[in-house]
Amino acid sequence: MVDTYDVVVIGAGPGGYVAAIRAAQLGQKVACVERAELGGICLNWGCIPTKALLHSAHLRQEISHAEVHGFAVGAVEVAWDRLIKRSRGVAARLSRGVGSLFKKYGVTHVVGSARIERPGVVVVAAPGKDDVTLAAKQIVVATGARPRPFPGLAFDGETVWSSREAMVSTARPESLLILGAGAIGCEFAYFYNAFGAKVTLVEMAPRVLPIEDDECSAALEKSFAKQGIDVRTGTRATSVKVVDGKVVAELVGKDGATTTLTADKVLVAIGVLGNVEGLGLEAAGVEFDPKRGQVQVDKDGHTTCPGIWAIGDVAAPPALAHKASAEGIHVAELMAGHPHRAVDLDNIPSCTYCEPQVASVGLPERVLKERQIPYKVGKFPYVGNGKALALEDKEGFAKVLFHAETGALLGAHLFGSAATELIAESVLVRSAELTEADILASVHAHPTLSEAFHEAVGQAFGESVNL
Amino acid sequence: MVDTYDVVVIGAGPGGYVAAIRAAQLGQKVACVERAELGGICLNWGCIPTKALLHSAHLRQEISHAEVHGFAVGAVEVAWDRLIKRSRGVAARLSRGVGSLFKKYGVTHVVGSARIERPGVVVVAAPGKDDVTLAAKQIVVATGARPRPFPGLAFDGETVWSSREAMVSTARPESLLILGAGAIGCEFAYFYNAFGAKVTLVEMAPRVLPIEDDECSAALEKSFAKQGIDVRTGTRATSVKVVDGKVVAELVGKDGATTTLTADKVLVAIGVLGNVEGLGLEAAGVEFDPKRGQVQVDKDGHTTCPGIWAIGDVAAPPALAHKASAEGIHVAELMAGHPHRAVDLDNIPSCTYCEPQVASVGLPERVLKERQIPYKVGKFPYVGNGKALALEDKEGFAKVLFHAETGALLGAHLFGSAATELIAESVLVRSAELTEADILASVHAHPTLSEAFHEAVGQAFGESVNL
Repeated sequence: MVDTYDVVVIGAGPGGYVAAIRAAQLGQKVACVERAELGGICLNWGCIPTKALLHSAHLRQEISHAEVHGFAVGAVEVAWDRLIKRSRGVAARLSRGVGSLFKKYGVTHVVGSARIERPGVVVVAAPGKDDVTLAAKQIVVATGARPRPFPGLAFDGETVWSSREAMVSTARPESLLILGAGAIGCEFAYFYNAFGAKVTLVEMAPRVLPIEDDECSAALEKSFAKQGIDVRTGTRATSVKVVDGKVVAELVGKDGATTTLTADKVLVAIGVLGNVEGLGLEAAGVEFDPKRGQVQVDKDGHTTCPGIWAIGDVAAPPALAHKASAEGIHVAELMAGHPHRAVDLDNIPSCTYCEPQVASVGLPERVLKERQIPYKVGKFPYVGNGKALALEDKEGFAKVLFHAETGALLGAHLFGSAATELIAESVLVRSAELTEADILASVHAHPTLSEAFHEAVGQAFGESVNL
Repeated sequence: MVDTYDVVVIGAGPGGYVAAIRAAQLGQKVACVERAELGGICLNWGCIPTKALLHSAHLRQEISHAEVHGFAVGAVEVAWDRLIKRSRGVAARLSRGVGSLFKKYGVTHVVGSARIERPGVVVVAAPGKDDVTLAAKQIVVATGARPRPFPGLAFDGETVWSSREAMVSTARPESLLILGAGAIGCEFAYFYNAFGAKVTLVEMAPRVLPIEDDECSAALEKSFAKQGIDVRTGTRATSVKVVDGKVVAELVGKDGATTTLTADKVLVAIGVLGNVEGLGLEAAGVEFDPKRGQVQVDKDGHTTCPGIWAIGDVAAPPALAHKASAEGIHVAELMAGHPHRAVDLDNIPSCTYCEPQVASVGLPERVLKERQIPYKVGKFPYVGNGKALALEDKEGFAKVLFHAETGALLGAHLFGSAATELIAESVLVRSAELTEADILASVHAHPTLSEAFHEAVGQAFGESVNL
């Protein structure tokens, strides 16, 4: 028996489930194939559960600093299992939410692993069950990505962790080596350090969060060092082994000297690989880069095979949930025949949820220099912001980069408390093509951290009074 | 001796100090007269010190709920004096900051009380000093406002508090009656309740935060009741007296029944009165409403006397610091002969910093109904937002109101965690005259609370997938 659908979506992560629901809302008959939890990595093993953990870490730090705020707090004991359990509970709740949305909008959830037999036909295999064949006018590949292993070092779930193991470890390790200081590496460094683990954060690039603006990277590195994290940028791990259940790593630092480091666990956070294997892409004529795990797409998500689309981490960087969801909406609208504006990949905000937080959109200053784009820069520090002082969150700033001639906001780089929330305004400025005059004319509530952005814009144009 | 200035600003609050600095930046010779602390009520006795207190209250609550997050916290003792001291420290630091800015930009700070002798001449009197006469081409009245007393009940600084006493009380009262559930009343109700005082919050209007959207008011009232505050809306205090050092109040409730309530202290938070007295406004021909303490101004801040301007609380509602600052910038630009867009008084955000927070801009739904404006409404709850769940901040929503025909954002009403920061996006949407399409095309970072706004907009236009 063949079930026939207008749209079959492979993968129920933030790209796939959104595409499936939007397509169903637009009147399509939709199936969504998922072999694991609804919501994908993001909801179950990524964005969401980590934010629960990070909030606990922040609370732990706030309690540590409570004296400043007028409290004497007795002994604090951490119930590690409860902390992990809450994180899992939040993930489970949201995953169930996706299931409810599928029911509400009539999306058929097919459990199993999908393979495109040929354009228009998807076969779903599930252990202990007969294969199910789905006929589909349109197929959306939204299979996401997985952690990239360190060369020669397989994830073992015990000593060699990916982010997945790092968020459900049964106990806090005494010492943790983290390879890679991107968003994931930095978030877990913050988390485990806040709970007292000895954390060494190793990054090959000369700075943490290498894609961020240099000033954000430098500020975070400084803050991390102050928090007690052993940050080693410009450092290469030449060998990482498990010896007697411990991690032994050879690290070559900036100065070329090799040191040996031993730790209880190692978290490998050196990027992701798109899930392109076993999908039948070759046979369908869908071109992809097997090494990076990336399906070739045009700006609208069309692959090289008509009727097959790809979105999210498996399609093109950045590998971010909100980029995947935006693409999910976009392809659903296009499949329904609606005109729809393509997702602007140059206007996807990037967020790191440690404290202080880092968020940005657009280009960092070094790229403007490289490309010789004429720009104006404005920066406003949290120490000049009343709300930041009231919160005792003095580490922070807003930095903005405008085109010197057009007034376009080329980049916004926020460091500090609430940065991940505040970045929304900059994204809107860019997507609606507003200029500095629009921002300056918009009255920002006092006292808020959002004023730092407003003041930074004023700084860039000689119109800030508070610095 | 007469000192001659281009501009004399009377009052160094968020309106006056900003006007003075901006005018100086634009090349004017500026004096700013202030009889009390630089920074005015906002920095010293309003916005800023209260936010420090409210953050301590929030931390107190977070510690109370720490068990949910995986902590067992021992006895918590509150060092009330330290808590107040930190708040004062933050205020003092910012006030000093204004002094530094005055020095940096060459604004002359004249200490004393100013009186306009005639247009172009200001006389400053300070205790124990000779009067100083300042000649000024332009005069800016930025004298702010003071708490309005309850009829027949003078502030005594002991038992009958204004917000000023409420933020420096030497000890937490056992019981506190608060008259007026506007932003100030609600913030102090939240603060004192969080530290264990028995708080009764009385409001004549049928809801707390009467100017906010009914749904925000209702949600906050419900949350306050849950937090343990005795909220009495639709209730009129017919008599409030101090008897043997205690407050005795007669309250007539919704049902017309009178109850007598006794409390240690009463905080009167029923609004403010502009400071128009003793300024020589009558003689200068500056028209004003003596009862409300409001100087008559046009949209650019001109009073009825050429060369005399008025800004901030003394000029027109709303009595909000950011409105005053925006007007300060505006008049400084106009005085320098620059074309400059007038402050749009219909686009001033309103914020209440208790938890859950309330923030809004534009019109509430009931006004759209009254005015028979066709509208679309969208609402998205925090329980559907991953970040809110991760924070355990489930009380909250974003509500948006769009013109049904033009797509203009008529009102945005945010309730919950970070609402006061998130409102900036809505203000920008309105000031730049963007529509729902612009907002929907702007990718909001996941997971953030800012997504709730995006989803609410989607709800209004049938384009939200997560509800």
